[in-house]
Amino acid sequence: MDWLDSITWDAQGLVPVIAQEAGSGDVLMFAWMNREALALTAERGQAVYYSRSRRRLWHKGEESGHFQQVHSIRLDCDADVVLLTVTQLGHDPGIACHTGRHSCFFNKFVGGSEPDWAEAEPVLKDPDDIYKK
Amino acid sequence: MDWLDSITWDAQGLVPVIAQEAGSGDVLMFAWMNREALALTAERGQAVYYSRSRRRLWHKGEESGHFQQVHSIRLDCDADVVLLTVTQLGHDPGIACHTGRHSCFFNKFVGGSEPDWAEAEPVLKDPDDIYKK
Repeated sequence: MDWLDSITWDAQGLVPVIAQEAGSGDVLMFAWMNREALALTAERGQAVYYSRSRRRLWHKGEESGHFQQVHSIRLDCDADVVLLTVTQLGHDPGIACHTGRHSCFFNKFVGGSEPDWAEAEPVLKDPDDIYKK
Repeated sequence: MDWLDSITWDAQGLVPVIAQEAGSGDVLMFAWMNREALALTAERGQAVYYSRSRRRLWHKGEESGHFQQVHSIRLDCDADVVLLTVTQLGHDPGIACHTGRHSCFFNKFVGGSEPDWAEAEPVLKDPDDIYKK
């Protein structure tokens, strides 16, 4: 599949992936894909990542039910970063983060005399309820 | 500066950074920062990255004039990815990509019997005119 050869995979055979919500434009999460993950994502129309910690394919939502429907796949100028536009399924509003928040980017920098990070997004669902088995 | 210690820097002392345009929500580019770059970004309110190829700080716009005014800095749940919202300065509409395009993510996946990437954004300014010295 030639289109996969266009990508500059890193030394681990991975490419960084940004998932952006269609409509809102919110950046939901950042993860990685290997060749198989990207091929499956295109084939299924649902995001399949590669988990570096678990060292295996990770069909986003396989545990949480929070699947991502993929609308478009883009590649950057250096062919080494992928951008997905997705609909975050399984909850309304969508929960992309394992903490139960809409987006993983919920820590906001606050400057001033004591610069620090502040939580800027609410937990929409308790992770214990998302991942209970 | 404690807020910089909150970040999980990678083995090279870097963190991946996504730059998103304020207003449009367009994801413009993806780059890297080291500790000094992020400190300078917060201090100046303009994006300063770390160029892995040139192995030095890279004040975005230093050659092109296409500086990025930074409105917010966010950190993800694992504290290992940064998201900036920016205004892309120097041209209207903004040019973030070294190819003279608005966004670096101009290659769009087109499925079907012969899946491939297609250029989906116009060149707004000839790179020879952007980088001529």
